[in-house]
Amino acid sequence: MERKFAVILGNLGNTRDRFCNGYKESPETLDMLRRAAAIPDVTGVELVGSWDIRADNAGQMRSALSDLGLQCVSIIPDLFADPCYGKGSYSSAEAAVRRRAIDYTRTMCDIARDLGCPLINLWPGQDGYDYLLCADYDRERGWMCEAVAELAEAYPDLKFALEYKPKEPRTHCYLARMADTLLLAQETGRMNVGVTIDTGHAFVAGETVAEAIVLAKRAGGRLFHMHFNDNYTTTDDDMIVGTVHTVAYLETVYWLDRCGYDGWLSMDQYPYREDAAGAIGESIQWLQQFLTLVEHNRSEIAALIEKQDPVATSRFLRSVLLDRGLAEHRMQGSLQTA
Amino acid sequence: MERKFAVILGNLGNTRDRFCNGYKESPETLDMLRRAAAIPDVTGVELVGSWDIRADNAGQMRSALSDLGLQCVSIIPDLFADPCYGKGSYSSAEAAVRRRAIDYTRTMCDIARDLGCPLINLWPGQDGYDYLLCADYDRERGWMCEAVAELAEAYPDLKFALEYKPKEPRTHCYLARMADTLLLAQETGRMNVGVTIDTGHAFVAGETVAEAIVLAKRAGGRLFHMHFNDNYTTTDDDMIVGTVHTVAYLETVYWLDRCGYDGWLSMDQYPYREDAAGAIGESIQWLQQFLTLVEHNRSEIAALIEKQDPVATSRFLRSVLLDRGLAEHRMQGSLQTA
Amino acid sequence: MERKFAVILGNLGNTRDRFCNGYKESPETLDMLRRAAAIPDVTGVELVGSWDIRADNAGQMRSALSDLGLQCVSIIPDLFADPCYGKGSYSSAEAAVRRRAIDYTRTMCDIARDLGCPLINLWPGQDGYDYLLCADYDRERGWMCEAVAELAEAYPDLKFALEYKPKEPRTHCYLARMADTLLLAQETGRMNVGVTIDTGHAFVAGETVAEAIVLAKRAGGRLFHMHFNDNYTTTDDDMIVGTVHTVAYLETVYWLDRCGYDGWLSMDQYPYREDAAGAIGESIQWLQQFLTLVEHNRSEIAALIEKQDPVATSRFLRSVLLDRGLAEHRMQGSLQTA
Amino acid sequence: MERKFAVILGNLGNTRDRFCNGYKESPETLDMLRRAAAIPDVTGVELVGSWDIRADNAGQMRSALSDLGLQCVSIIPDLFADPCYGKGSYSSAEAAVRRRAIDYTRTMCDIARDLGCPLINLWPGQDGYDYLLCADYDRERGWMCEAVAELAEAYPDLKFALEYKPKEPRTHCYLARMADTLLLAQETGRMNVGVTIDTGHAFVAGETVAEAIVLAKRAGGRLFHMHFNDNYTTTDDDMIVGTVHTVAYLETVYWLDRCGYDGWLSMDQYPYREDAAGAIGESIQWLQQFLTLVEHNRSEIAALIEKQDPVATSRFLRSVLLDRGLAEHRMQGSLQTA
Repeated sequence: MERKFAVILGNLGNTRDRFCNGYKESPETLDMLRRAAAIPDVTGVELVGSWDIRADNAGQMRSALSDLGLQCVSIIPDLFADPCYGKGSYSSAEAAVRRRAIDYTRTMCDIARDLGCPLINLWPGQDGYDYLLCADYDRERGWMCEAVAELAEAYPDLKFALEYKPKEPRTHCYLARMADTLLLAQETGRMNVGVTIDTGHAFVAGETVAEAIVLAKRAGGRLFHMHFNDNYTTTDDDMIVGTVHTVAYLETVYWLDRCGYDGWLSMDQYPYREDAAGAIGESIQWLQQFLTLVEHNRSEIAALIEKQDPVATSRFLRSVLLDRGLAEHRMQGSLQTA
Repeated sequence: MERKFAVILGNLGNTRDRFCNGYKESPETLDMLRRAAAIPDVTGVELVGSWDIRADNAGQMRSALSDLGLQCVSIIPDLFADPCYGKGSYSSAEAAVRRRAIDYTRTMCDIARDLGCPLINLWPGQDGYDYLLCADYDRERGWMCEAVAELAEAYPDLKFALEYKPKEPRTHCYLARMADTLLLAQETGRMNVGVTIDTGHAFVAGETVAEAIVLAKRAGGRLFHMHFNDNYTTTDDDMIVGTVHTVAYLETVYWLDRCGYDGWLSMDQYPYREDAAGAIGESIQWLQQFLTLVEHNRSEIAALIEKQDPVATSRFLRSVLLDRGLAEHRMQGSLQTA
Repeated sequence: MERKFAVILGNLGNTRDRFCNGYKESPETLDMLRRAAAIPDVTGVELVGSWDIRADNAGQMRSALSDLGLQCVSIIPDLFADPCYGKGSYSSAEAAVRRRAIDYTRTMCDIARDLGCPLINLWPGQDGYDYLLCADYDRERGWMCEAVAELAEAYPDLKFALEYKPKEPRTHCYLARMADTLLLAQETGRMNVGVTIDTGHAFVAGETVAEAIVLAKRAGGRLFHMHFNDNYTTTDDDMIVGTVHTVAYLETVYWLDRCGYDGWLSMDQYPYREDAAGAIGESIQWLQQFLTLVEHNRSEIAALIEKQDPVATSRFLRSVLLDRGLAEHRMQGSLQTA
Repeated sequence: MERKFAVILGNLGNTRDRFCNGYKESPETLDMLRRAAAIPDVTGVELVGSWDIRADNAGQMRSALSDLGLQCVSIIPDLFADPCYGKGSYSSAEAAVRRRAIDYTRTMCDIARDLGCPLINLWPGQDGYDYLLCADYDRERGWMCEAVAELAEAYPDLKFALEYKPKEPRTHCYLARMADTLLLAQETGRMNVGVTIDTGHAFVAGETVAEAIVLAKRAGGRLFHMHFNDNYTTTDDDMIVGTVHTVAYLETVYWLDRCGYDGWLSMDQYPYREDAAGAIGESIQWLQQFLTLVEHNRSEIAALIEKQDPVATSRFLRSVLLDRGLAEHRMQGSLQTA
């Protein structure tokens, strides 16, 4: 698997929550771009529509990206921060809002083509519901599907990666988990519609990320993009990879490799109170090391999966995570076996 | 929607957990059948294979059911209690176990035909995994799919309802949520493969039951069966309907009705320490009353869903759940409006 | 139990989250005060320090409250929105920040005295930690305790109600659940230190609210204040009371009454997209009706609690929530018994 | 911290759940004892009353333990498997059951004295409630407290360690979390009443284990015993330590050491389908290695906790878990600094 690391540009900006309206300073876009380029191993960025990239600054951004040696990996249309989509975008009960959301996304698709960016990451976070008996699940899912299908048909050269998340900002979001998002992708009838896994969203959804990767593969190779971060499994804490989960990332990286994932490994964090570049850089280095671990142990991991023996898997995990002596012994053992 | 109430026969038997090997006495099968028939409004039963129904007692059971005026609503092959399936049935790593599970299910299908039972409820609870890096998600899901497809093809006159549940007895079960189960049903390529919603399993999965109903409808009318019980959303507590959730059941019943569900409403509880017949009877009466509520307020609920105003929905809920004065006022208001 | 309803003033203002910086307009403080006074049954307000109440507007607020017939039920010092407390207030690693937090709270205590407000509601939401191995749980809990003790000693005529919440804005907050908050209250050695239950926080903490009420009573009568709202148990959704949970509120209100709670019933919601006054008013009417239900059934509920029979409790719940016929029958039965 | 490893004897026996009545064979007690002794580093066992240890076999067990070089670390009276306690033991609504539970425990205390076992591990798992409005939280907590106080007073030479767990076998258990258990321990007025942390129970309770350790220390040194296992945070899966959580154990071991814990490190697993001795042995080796890690990095970890910088903590974690090169570099760096 190619090691292509990216970051969502806004991760380097200010942070806030519903209580505190800004834990940090708000840097300029070009300043954030320079900070992104300075993070070791970062060669791509994702730009949020309206915030980072608009018709009026697209030329300037293209130059800046080129100067910094960065690729625009995806554009993420802002369907979540603009209050006009506060009660939904593609599935809004108001036809005018749905139209606006689609037209706005088309503008972003045009810019993506212009920048040579191959992927639109769609996170319709406001599309969902808060209260029971307050939404027509059938009709609204239909609208969501129609909107995505229209976009995918209009831009067959672009990939549309649907990012799922069970909750926040709504108490329930329509694109909630891998499998329901795959059902919608299939319903569009277009092969350029796929899925983005955000590891943190998958944890909150109760999923095993590796199993979600397999589901996407089985549904016709629909895993288009990866967002990385960590959390305690009940909230999208957007933390540094590896600070809560360890084994889960090793398994995730292994199955990405095994399923032939060829997309970007992009960091999507929200470093409320930490140094942003430092936090993102840490995530990348964790992943680098998990990738190295997989490369060095690919056949052994495959054998463990085949063996289905938790005791053997535990012994292996200890050997690579903790026990240098055991690791060396194991390595010698496998040399002798070979 | 027709009010057809059933119960899983074993609900009336002994209960145990991993600590206590029996909170109650273990009654005879025929005794449980009599108890089931005595619960008000029960006209159907679900029989667990091996426990309640086998080749050797099928004739006797047919007579007993007939005498008691009960229909056999479904057969649930025992793929979960027999230790031979302790590490999986249709997706076991051992080919012989997979074969045995399929052949055993075929025996149950034959008995179902014999009893005039139209539906096989498949809950492969042992098919899943406990530890990370101990399962081949891809291969095992494939085996599961093949097994179900073979059965559905061999018995085109029967419906196969896949019951999903995220965990227990494994820490992760393969048929975990509505949408992944629909993906597998679709992958079989057979329209006689659908889904059973167990309301408690859906709660544990983090689903809104009504939304799951809509997903099944959109996937080609694949909601085949309903199991009812309640819980606190983190564990399959199998409690009396309505003792934890209230509004969620009202919404569930409304959408079942709206989506034209024509199957059975079957109780699937595990009354560890309570009187079983009493606990099951209570669930049915809660559902009866939710059904009446929906019948009396169908158009008003539709209007609220269209309106998407939580304050209006709250006012309606209070009126039907708590405030008789408000209810009367509202009823008069709607009369005047009409 | 006296029916004294209040609202946190800010509930009537703008709402935002980390994505969207304002779903609504931002009204003036006096405008919010008028809106609060117009909600049926509201006779008290809680004021957030710095936002709603400061030394410079205390006189004006006193007049406005008096004109509108409102009592100031509590002052909530802003220890959570001011970025200076972004990494903690009373338990900040910086001594100067801890001092500032205490001194700021003292200012608020002085204003409370001035307004005749008897209670300071302390929610040190930023006091906690996000990452493992990044906090000295012992030292920081000690600082928290010292700060509260200093305040409680300096203002023996005021009550200090500690509001617990397991997470948000930190991934882990120090005052997380009822029992740990009681331990800290006891450690201060002051009887004017108690606890605020926010029903939504208790749900997220996995608590049964009624049991938390009993814990506070057993710890020397330390339940000082109540905040009401609803959620789906994993996130502090701050929704309308009764739209998710039903039975839990009935039980909560029953045990408040039984334990002799004599404080305010204050609404603490965050109506992101709904009409604020409508949403708050709904919560109050749900509570009014639960209170009426308890008043009419106090002895029957006591008998059910004594009986410990879930089937009987279920029958009662159905009778009061759904079945008017059954309710009448039951009422006649109890009349005949009497 | 002394490395004293123990195991609950029953971990080596058969396993079952409410579906499957036995995944394994049921070995003899003496056979389990031999298996326990054969696990590397095990020098202690915990015996469950009635199952493993009774008046009639106490002499035989004493000899067997002596022969195998094992200490009896604790006795765990069976208050959870005997159906007579199915609705509660110390807090049962029936006075005769409460008396029986206390008298039975006294018998176990006598045996403990006889065996030179210094600690009674009390897990009253059936003491709690399933349904709302079916329990008198106040009265039952009072009974629980009285029972424990009576025992602690009668056996001042024994330590009574209360093991908390939020749910299972009841939907809600009275000893649910660290802090409420400390409140009860304090209420007994006896210093020989403390707490057992089961790491898996703490995860399910939403606790940070290290913070729970600190709470127990602050409440007068009441951490008496430790049970180790792992899970996915929503269910007590009783898995091998380190197969889900990694960093959490490192932090736990660090704070045990820092707080001067001098008790046993006992394994409490439920290896449903795995080789029991292998699974338990793995947990011990994970802990051995975490302990070594703490010993080698004690001052660095202390500095990180003081620093409160998640980026620095992440870098350290990577260095000790994954990056041997970085670890060596860091080691040299600290040597040069020193």
